Amino acid sequence: MYKAKAYAAISAASPLSSAVIERREPKENDVQIEILYCGVCHSDLHTARNEWAAAVQTVYPCVPGHEIIGRVTKVGSAVTRFKAGDRVGVGCLVGSDGTCPACKEGLEQYCAGMVLTYNSPDADTGKVTYGGYSDSIVVDQHFVLRVPENLDAAAAAPLLCAGITTWSPLRHWGVTKGKKVGIVGLGGLGHMGVKFAHALGAHTVVFTTSPGKREDALRLGADEVVVSRDANEMQKHAGSFDFILDAVSAEHDINAYIHLLKRDGNMTLVGAPDKPLPLSSFGLIFGRRSVSGSLIGGIAETQEMLDFCGEHNITSDVEVIPIQKINEAYERMLKSDVKYRFSIDMASLKNE
Amino acid sequence: MYKAKAYAAISAASPLSSAVIERREPKENDVQIEILYCGVCHSDLHTARNEWAAAVQTVYPCVPGHEIIGRVTKVGSAVTRFKAGDRVGVGCLVGSDGTCPACKEGLEQYCAGMVLTYNSPDADTGKVTYGGYSDSIVVDQHFVLRVPENLDAAAAAPLLCAGITTWSPLRHWGVTKGKKVGIVGLGGLGHMGVKFAHALGAHTVVFTTSPGKREDALRLGADEVVVSRDANEMQKHAGSFDFILDAVSAEHDINAYIHLLKRDGNMTLVGAPDKPLPLSSFGLIFGRRSVSGSLIGGIAETQEMLDFCGEHNITSDVEVIPIQKINEAYERMLKSDVKYRFSIDMASLKNE
Repeated sequence: MYKAKAYAAISAASPLSSAVIERREPKENDVQIEILYCGVCHSDLHTARNEWAAAVQTVYPCVPGHEIIGRVTKVGSAVTRFKAGDRVGVGCLVGSDGTCPACKEGLEQYCAGMVLTYNSPDADTGKVTYGGYSDSIVVDQHFVLRVPENLDAAAAAPLLCAGITTWSPLRHWGVTKGKKVGIVGLGGLGHMGVKFAHALGAHTVVFTTSPGKREDALRLGADEVVVSRDANEMQKHAGSFDFILDAVSAEHDINAYIHLLKRDGNMTLVGAPDKPLPLSSFGLIFGRRSVSGSLIGGIAETQEMLDFCGEHNITSDVEVIPIQKINEAYERMLKSDVKYRFSIDMASLKNE
Repeated sequence: MYKAKAYAAISAASPLSSAVIERREPKENDVQIEILYCGVCHSDLHTARNEWAAAVQTVYPCVPGHEIIGRVTKVGSAVTRFKAGDRVGVGCLVGSDGTCPACKEGLEQYCAGMVLTYNSPDADTGKVTYGGYSDSIVVDQHFVLRVPENLDAAAAAPLLCAGITTWSPLRHWGVTKGKKVGIVGLGGLGHMGVKFAHALGAHTVVFTTSPGKREDALRLGADEVVVSRDANEMQKHAGSFDFILDAVSAEHDINAYIHLLKRDGNMTLVGAPDKPLPLSSFGLIFGRRSVSGSLIGGIAETQEMLDFCGEHNITSDVEVIPIQKINEAYERMLKSDVKYRFSIDMASLKNE
């Protein structure tokens, strides 16, 4: 074990503050990474504040962060795919059983034995896993991604969660040139959805409640912007969408969007609203439409996404902050006061 | 035009009673059919009482009935597939535009120009279409189905709506040997779902709120019966279903069933509850599951279903009634007091 610098919550009510944690020394299949940037995800806040206690209790100290970009500093003896100096990423997953059908299909995120990057039981330490708000991390090579060198490191960090969470359903549901695709909600997830749908060649329509977001949506790659509160504007698109990605985490009317799908069209939810959403069966029945969900993405498709980003020079729009501003960033995130993702410059941790 | 005997509602509040209606003489592509039996569907009652006024107003007089079995009495000059004496069926559809993508794929039920068997505008009469509570009907040959002679006519009638409504989603979602399939709700639709899922070779599990239905579910072909109010029994099946067909029209908790689906599993709603159902996004997200709807079925798949029924000797469980008992049957249907479908012996109409 060795000591690493980190920022941690020590209880649900306390702000994050400087801490020292223990990490394992790299084992034969491990990659040790110096963390350069870490994106800030809503899950970080939910977990730090134990807001998902109904599903899983947060164990303290809690070190969040699963949008990690860094440099390899050391590799274990069995590691062949990485060497010191490589630019790499780590996302939401650092382990899975490796043997179940989901793992064999490269969908580790649906493995019952998956180990999350933070707040999952850690077999090596007997504690929980600690995430990317830290100066280093040690991860099994299977869960380490190559990050193209042409991408800005700070802006690439959110690809590891916000990116793959939107990429995976777009690919799973066959978004490509010739398809009409809607993106609902222009935040951390949604703005990546727009960039990807556009880059995949789809006719991309952004739905927003705020007319003021129109210009930004167009800049991000939207072909059209629809103000969802305008029923007439919505009606013009009835029955016309192949696929809609719904990235809204607040309560909202999903039936209004279901009616915009073509026959056999699908709407996928990735925003995970806390409360159940009222679902009208008629919108599904007339048109054999479907509503589904999607959880981050597997390791193979995360690499595919990063390679695609390298080719198309796609990154997240980020506001870079020092780790000392993380608590303020959480408050601003709650007000959607960020375009569109915070990325922590981990060099700031050296001052602690 | 010629006169036909029928039973009709003359207003939303009036019981059905004897009436004389006008039907067109067969045109070159038409088939004239003597109606022998007509099944009684919930839609008949909803339409007769104008309960779907929010979507479509009922035009009176209203002659319901879209589960029709009869004998061909006359065919138009261009009809090659049928001749007088053939046993045939007519379901929910008697027309569509024939040119749209849905029609070209054999999915006429999703054609924007589809003509329903009753209460749809009728271009030939300037009134509305009149359904199967009648001694005869005239239908374009494309919408006439062959009914295997080995099937009991009274019991085959409900195949034309209850049958195809359950068959279509089971086939669309790939139900076959080796799959685990759930059927929720054991009524007119659900009991057909059980018979089909079983005959298709799936491991078939019936969910019911009534332990008293266990024996009947097993008789119909269920491999297992789960009382859905028993949370422990439900939990034993978590994550194990490939497909669930939900045939419940009352309010119910769909999330409890979504949790029983495997990764990428689908639940299809055919029961069309009036009110929106609360949908938890988490059940969809963890497992990439989907919820969809399905509307009756196309003409080609209806024929496929009827041929399958002929080979496997599958019909509906019916209680045969004379047309004079139709109002009483509606009241009993509202109390689910029928196993599992009423079928009207149209010979009774000769007495009117």
